[in-house]
Amino acid sequence: MTDRAAKARKQGSDMSADIIDGKAFAAKVRGQIAGQVARMKADHGITPGLAVILVGEDPASQVYVRNKGTQTLEVGMHSYEHKLPAETRAEDLYALIDRLNADPAVHGILCQFPVPAHLSETEIVARIDPSKDVDGLHVVNAGLLASGQRAMVSCTPLGCLMLLRDRLGSLSGLNAVVVGRSNLVGKPMAQLLLRDSCTVTIAHSRTKDIAAVCRGADILVAAVGRPRMIPGDWIKPGATVIDVGINRVDAPERGPGKTRLVGDVDFDSAKEVAGAITPVPGGVGPMTIACLLANTLTACCRIHGLPEPDGLTA
Amino acid sequence: MTDRAAKARKQGSDMSADIIDGKAFAAKVRGQIAGQVARMKADHGITPGLAVILVGEDPASQVYVRNKGTQTLEVGMHSYEHKLPAETRAEDLYALIDRLNADPAVHGILCQFPVPAHLSETEIVARIDPSKDVDGLHVVNAGLLASGQRAMVSCTPLGCLMLLRDRLGSLSGLNAVVVGRSNLVGKPMAQLLLRDSCTVTIAHSRTKDIAAVCRGADILVAAVGRPRMIPGDWIKPGATVIDVGINRVDAPERGPGKTRLVGDVDFDSAKEVAGAITPVPGGVGPMTIACLLANTLTACCRIHGLPEPDGLTA
Ligand SMILES: NC(=O)c1ccc[n+]([C@@H]2O[C@H](COP(=O)([O-])OP(=O)(O)OC[C@H]3O[C@@H](n4cnc5c(N)ncnc54)[C@H](OP(=O)(O)O)[C@@H]3O)[C@@H](O)[C@H]2O)c1
Ligand SMILES: NC(=O)c1ccc[n+]([C@@H]2O[C@H](COP(=O)([O-])OP(=O)(O)OC[C@H]3O[C@@H](n4cnc5c(N)ncnc54)[C@H](OP(=O)(O)O)[C@@H]3O)[C@@H](O)[C@H]2O)c1
Repeated sequence: MTDRAAKARKQGSDMSADIIDGKAFAAKVRGQIAGQVARMKADHGITPGLAVILVGEDPASQVYVRNKGTQTLEVGMHSYEHKLPAETRAEDLYALIDRLNADPAVHGILCQFPVPAHLSETEIVARIDPSKDVDGLHVVNAGLLASGQRAMVSCTPLGCLMLLRDRLGSLSGLNAVVVGRSNLVGKPMAQLLLRDSCTVTIAHSRTKDIAAVCRGADILVAAVGRPRMIPGDWIKPGATVIDVGINRVDAPERGPGKTRLVGDVDFDSAKEVAGAITPVPGGVGPMTIACLLANTLTACCRIHGLPEPDGLTA
Repeated sequence: MTDRAAKARKQGSDMSADIIDGKAFAAKVRGQIAGQVARMKADHGITPGLAVILVGEDPASQVYVRNKGTQTLEVGMHSYEHKLPAETRAEDLYALIDRLNADPAVHGILCQFPVPAHLSETEIVARIDPSKDVDGLHVVNAGLLASGQRAMVSCTPLGCLMLLRDRLGSLSGLNAVVVGRSNLVGKPMAQLLLRDSCTVTIAHSRTKDIAAVCRGADILVAAVGRPRMIPGDWIKPGATVIDVGINRVDAPERGPGKTRLVGDVDFDSAKEVAGAITPVPGGVGPMTIACLLANTLTACCRIHGLPEPDGLTA
C-alpha cells in the first residue's frame, strides 16, 4: 500500500497496524542502487567508491564496517577499508582523509564512530570534503539541508523519509511530530519533513504534556533512546509511526541473562492504534546502510555532473 | 515585566496585552553594545568595524544603508560603506569581498540586498568569510546554528529571541509556533527556539487548520508577509505574540492614496487576548539593526579570541 487510502481505511477501524517491512524495503532500495550503478558503469565507465575508516578495534564497529563493506560490493560499488591502530595520531588520520578527499576513485568517505578518546569526532567530520560526506554530518551539509539546498543527508533520517514517502505518497500538509532533537537523527528528520511540507513539531526532554503532542501526529517519528517510552494511547488512530530507537533490554523470557532489542515505541500497544508502524528490529535499522549506499551513488553523480539518482535523494 | 508572572497574571483576565516596545528595547541593546565597545577599546585597543556594500541606487536600500551606518557610528564602531555602480561585474564585487575578508579592521561584512539581476545573492553570501557574515546567511552559519554550535545568527530572529527572553526569562518547555519557514526568518527562528528548549512547531502555507496550530502556542511568531492574517481568536489567552511581518496596506482614512504599515497579526483583536504583543511598526523592526551591531561585536570578540559579549548572542 503506497497511498493515503491505506491510512484512511485504517482510521477508526480496530484492525491492527500494517507492519512496515524495513528489511524488504531496504533490499529493494539496494536493488535500485545496483541497477543505477550498473548503468553508470555501462554508460559512463564510472564505478562509485566508498571509503570507510576504522580506528581501533571496537568489536561492534568492526561488525558495522564489515556489513557496510559487504553491502557496498553487493551493489557493484568499490569498497575501500582503512583500518588504523587505536593509537593513530590525529595528523596521520587527517593526512589519510586528505588523500581520500583528493582521490577521484573515492566518492564517499566515512569514519566509523566512536573513535578513541584522543581524537575529535567534530574535527574528523570537518576534515572530510562535504561533497564526499556520505554520513551527512559536516556542518556545510547541515547548512545546505537547513536552507533547502542539495545536501548530503544523514542516513537514518533519509531512510525514514523513504519509508514515509513509500507508505504515504505526498507528505504535504500532514502533522509530523519528531520526538528527539539530536544532530544525527531528530533535527535532520525535522528538516526533511518540513521540506516535504509537513507541519512539523519537534519534541524533546523538556516538552510538556508530550502525550498530547504525540496524539496530534499523523506521522510520529521516535528517536529518543528510551525503551518503549511511547505507548499506544499516545498515538492518533491511523497514524504512521516510525520507531528509530534501538534499545537493548533484559529478556528473561528468553533465558537467564538474555537480552533483546526494542524500540522507543511500545510496539504491542501501538500496533493496535497506528495505521502503520516500523518494528524493531527490522524497521528503520536496515534502511541506514541502504541510505549510505544511496548517498555514495548521489555523491558520485554530483561529483561527475550527472543527474541525481532516481528516488534515492531527499 | 520580565518574568512569567506577568504572563500568568494575564491568563484568563480581560485586560489587554502588554505592548512590547521594540524601539525602546533596541535602544537599550544599542546602549549595552556601546558600553562593551568602549570597554573593548579601553582594554584591548580594538574597535569593531562593519563594512556594508551597496550595489546600485535602489532608494529603499540607500535609506537602510544610511541608517545602518549612522547607528554603527553611534555605538562607537567603525563603519565602512562601499557603494558600487549598478553595472558592477561579479568578479569586481568578489575582489572587494576578498579584500574585506582579509582586512583585520573589518569584523562584519554585509551586502545590502536586493542586488541587480546579473549578480547572484547566493554566490555573494558564499564569498563572505562565515566568521564575518553578520547577516547570518552563509550556509556554514546555517549549519552551525542547526547543529547547536556557535554561529552568526540572522538578525531578525535573533532580535525576536532577545525580546522573548526579556519578556519570559527561560523559554524552556513553552510551546512555540513559528508561522513561516523562510531561510531568513522562520527557519532560524525555529532553531533558536529549539535551542532554548521550546517545543517548536513550524507552520506554513501547506499547514492544515492553522488556527488550531496557532491556538496551541505560548509563543507565537508570525513571519508570513500577509497583512493581519492572524486574528485574535487564533491566539491562546496570555500568549506572547511576536509579529515579524511588515506589510504596506492602503489607508484611505489617512487621506486619498495614503498607505500604512501593518503586521501579519491583526493587532486590534490580538491585543485583547495575548499576554504581550509586538506592534508594527515599533516592535521587531528596530531590533534588526540592533542585532546587526550585536553580531558585529560578537564577530569581533570571536576573531580576537575574547569572551562572547554579554547578553547579545543566541
Ligand atoms: N536505526 C538506526 O540506524 C539508528 C541510527 C541512529 C540512532 N538510532 C537510535 O535512535 C535513538 C536516538 O538516537 P540519537 O542519536 O538521536 O540519540 P540522542 O543523541 O541521545 O538524542 C536523544 C533525544 O531524545 C530526547 N529525549 C530524551 N529523553 C526524553 C524523554 N523522556 N522525552 C522526550 N524526549 C527525550 C533528548 O532530548 P534533549 O535534547 O532534551 O536531551 C534528545 O534530543 C537511540 O535509541 C539510537 O540507538 C538508531
Ligand atoms: N522586522 C524585520 O526587520 C523583518 C525582517 C525580515 C522580514 N520581515 C517581514 O516578515 C515577513 C516574512 O518575511 P520572509 O522573508 O520570511 O518571507 P517569505 O520568504 O516570503 O516567507 C513567507 C513564509 O510564510 C508562509 N506563508 C505564506 N502564506 C501563508 C499562509 N497563508 N499561511 C501560512 N503561512 C504562509 C510561506 O509558506 P511556504 O514556504 O509554504 O510558501 C513562507 O514560508 C514579511 O512581511 C517581511 O517583510 C521583517
